[in-house]
Amino acid sequence: MAVQSVESSTTSSASVPGAFGPAVALSCRECGERFELGPIFACEACFGPLEVAYELPAGDPEGLRRRIEAGPNSIWRYAPLLPVPADVAELPSLDPGLTQLVRADRLAGELGVTGELHIKDDSGNPTHSFKDRVVAIAVQAARTFGFTTLSCSSTGNLAGAVGAAAARAGFRSCVFIPHDLEAGKVVMAAVYGGDLVGIEGNYDDVNRFCSELIGDPAGEGWGFVNVNLRPYYGEGSKTLAYEICEQLGWRLPDQIVVPIASGSQLTKIDKGLKELIAIGLVEDRPYKIFGAQAEGCSPVSAAFKAGHDVVRPQKPRTIAKSLAIGNPADGPYVLDIARRTGGAVEDVNDEQIVDAIKLLARTEGIFAETAGGVTVGVTKKLIEDGLLDPSLTTVVLNTGDGLKTLDAVAPTTGPSAIIRPTLDSFREAGLA
Amino acid sequence: MAVQSVESSTTSSASVPGAFGPAVALSCRECGERFELGPIFACEACFGPLEVAYELPAGDPEGLRRRIEAGPNSIWRYAPLLPVPADVAELPSLDPGLTQLVRADRLAGELGVTGELHIKDDSGNPTHSFKDRVVAIAVQAARTFGFTTLSCSSTGNLAGAVGAAAARAGFRSCVFIPHDLEAGKVVMAAVYGGDLVGIEGNYDDVNRFCSELIGDPAGEGWGFVNVNLRPYYGEGSKTLAYEICEQLGWRLPDQIVVPIASGSQLTKIDKGLKELIAIGLVEDRPYKIFGAQAEGCSPVSAAFKAGHDVVRPQKPRTIAKSLAIGNPADGPYVLDIARRTGGAVEDVNDEQIVDAIKLLARTEGIFAETAGGVTVGVTKKLIEDGLLDPSLTTVVLNTGDGLKTLDAVAPTTGPSAIIRPTLDSFREAGLA
Ligand SMILES: Cc1ncc(COP(=O)(O)O)c(C=O)c1O
Ligand SMILES: Cc1ncc(COP(=O)(O)O)c(C=O)c1O
Ligand SMILES: [Zn+2]
Ligand SMILES: [Zn+2]
Repeated sequence: MAVQSVESSTTSSASVPGAFGPAVALSCRECGERFELGPIFACEACFGPLEVAYELPAGDPEGLRRRIEAGPNSIWRYAPLLPVPADVAELPSLDPGLTQLVRADRLAGELGVTGELHIKDDSGNPTHSFKDRVVAIAVQAARTFGFTTLSCSSTGNLAGAVGAAAARAGFRSCVFIPHDLEAGKVVMAAVYGGDLVGIEGNYDDVNRFCSELIGDPAGEGWGFVNVNLRPYYGEGSKTLAYEICEQLGWRLPDQIVVPIASGSQLTKIDKGLKELIAIGLVEDRPYKIFGAQAEGCSPVSAAFKAGHDVVRPQKPRTIAKSLAIGNPADGPYVLDIARRTGGAVEDVNDEQIVDAIKLLARTEGIFAETAGGVTVGVTKKLIEDGLLDPSLTTVVLNTGDGLKTLDAVAPTTGPSAIIRPTLDSFREAGLA
Repeated sequence: MAVQSVESSTTSSASVPGAFGPAVALSCRECGERFELGPIFACEACFGPLEVAYELPAGDPEGLRRRIEAGPNSIWRYAPLLPVPADVAELPSLDPGLTQLVRADRLAGELGVTGELHIKDDSGNPTHSFKDRVVAIAVQAARTFGFTTLSCSSTGNLAGAVGAAAARAGFRSCVFIPHDLEAGKVVMAAVYGGDLVGIEGNYDDVNRFCSELIGDPAGEGWGFVNVNLRPYYGEGSKTLAYEICEQLGWRLPDQIVVPIASGSQLTKIDKGLKELIAIGLVEDRPYKIFGAQAEGCSPVSAAFKAGHDVVRPQKPRTIAKSLAIGNPADGPYVLDIARRTGGAVEDVNDEQIVDAIKLLARTEGIFAETAGGVTVGVTKKLIEDGLLDPSLTTVVLNTGDGLKTLDAVAPTTGPSAIIRPTLDSFREAGLA
């Protein structure tokens, strides 16, 4: 695999040998044009999004499997498949990943699932969302490219993940969020001591602003993890695919339900699964990927149902704020993957999201954020509609933490009773 | 080791062979009297607290080390040292433990620590506090004893841990908390679908009430994890000691800083370290254990400084609500351990707690709850006072999560600026 076209940039991969491990180039998702690994994110030829291309380890899947299993208890065990240096585990990072894959028999019972049902619980990450995975890879690239400030446009979780990762690794940070996010997310985004900027507008406004800032002298030296570092950032989500297969005993799930905001995560999970097949770490057989959105921000679901290839932007209005991206960058690729694998994209309303959060908590002891309510709620709906086969092995992602979206459940979740510290008072409450 | 005295109880260990693994009896901390493993917690002879006694694996430390390292990524890797059956990892539980031991070089720099400084970050547990460890063991005992309802008196974290663990394992739960806890802790304690009862009073009132309930028909069939199951519960904290040593490369830390509420955790960390030495898994050399309290609830620290052997109860008044136990059951044992190992017990005020939370977040990207602010703040104070040697290997515990105590930092933690989504507006904010 030769690099066909080389982009000039202040710092390039050529100057830091091994900095990107098995990655060899950036390639355009639209036209296939290749570029040298650098802090770029759009194709010069067609403006298509760039993604990381690899020369992946081939020929000895058994040896690779053993190497992975002997590796650290974090995403760095998959360093041979990521755009990071071989010694990445030695560098300061939050070391996310290897979160629990929970066998969810009690939830399966309630949903009428007769096959294996698993929750991949990414609330176990350091800042309690899957965003720690993507940020960890982006930080690595930022280091290589010589950026000194880490930044992002965020629906909430990403801001906290960037703030924490920057603190650990010794970067300055300045992150951007819609001004009206949940209290937990705002405090978390600010507590690590970087700058936090609230923007009067929704996520799409924030994102547009960040794109402008990158072209401006004010944004000089800034690595925006999900904009100019987006090709690297995205690769972090592949680790969800790797972990799920490893935790299933190096086996593909039949079906996987993934939340969609920009759609990056879903596309990279597909990429990760395809890589494991190509390398020979799992058997080559079909899998279905399902996308999950909130009804109040369902541009991809709407396009899927209408049979469209393009996604018409929406103005978000949902309690699932972390998924409230009305104009999702990777929407068309998500549609493609759902259709190609035989999956679907579905949405649930706010009430169904709250019910699903409580269902998951009550059956499995997992307190998910609204995004987890979306995936569990959509799973229920897909089963009812006959689109998801309850007799197969299914993995549902919980990508965030209920403590960050307390308001979703707080109005209907509280003490059964307030009593005086006496047996009489307790008996009166009728709970014995 | 023969069982000298056998307590009659509805269900006893004899009826379930292997249910308690290497544990052979309960023994009285005061008089040494032994009892059969059962749902009892106080000595018949002297009312002293009971603890689990073992016949620990001896003679082949290397084999045991390999067995542990090949075990699951949870506390169950230490099953050979815990009162649980050998197949415990197969049973439904939250599978807590093996949380990160974070090398904290940037914090070390700020504190003037020249030796190794590590944070044991137990916010990575399923419900984001160390309580998942103790509950996991108690649930196992509850199962063996045939309890159908799980209960506890809690300062907040324990209630959530019990609720979640009960949901996962299919128990009913009914937990008791002071009525005025943090919103995050109240919602978390209720969201798993069990009963949550707020008590008009402080933790010591709640605890007294629970002790009454155990003797009452209304509490029949209830396993109170930290009352009638307390001997088993406590053993869960040993896993912190095991993990710290394993993560240091089977090496004892020189110094360890532990928060104190009831004092259970600190005493069991000491027990765990002593066991590893006895078994030969670590070299036998001295270590110092330091206890940390909030000034507004510092009965153990006060007793330590006054040179007393007994602890005079206090009325708590501190933002560190999880540590707000004014009448700590294990206080005298904590004093004993701090003195015997050459450690100390110290306290910090609310302002110092908040500063320490922010210091840890800013330097290491770890967002601790107030209890973590207490340990980090006390560490700083101990160094300043010359009681903790900054040139040695030190481990500081963060036992909980900042998302559960947002109010501690929220008033002084927020956006640097709120702007319109324009470059002009951003430039005006002066953050570039
Ligand atoms: C909790 C959570 N889940 C899922 C997503 C979806 O991410 P993506 O933009 O990759 O689709 C986000 C994005 O912010 C999120 O915060
Ligand atoms: C976060 C946290 N840390 C430490 C403790 C102290 O526990 P112990 O009662 O074992 O001293 C508690 C107790 O509730 C807690 O919630
Ligand atoms: Zn192109
Ligand atoms: Zn006794």
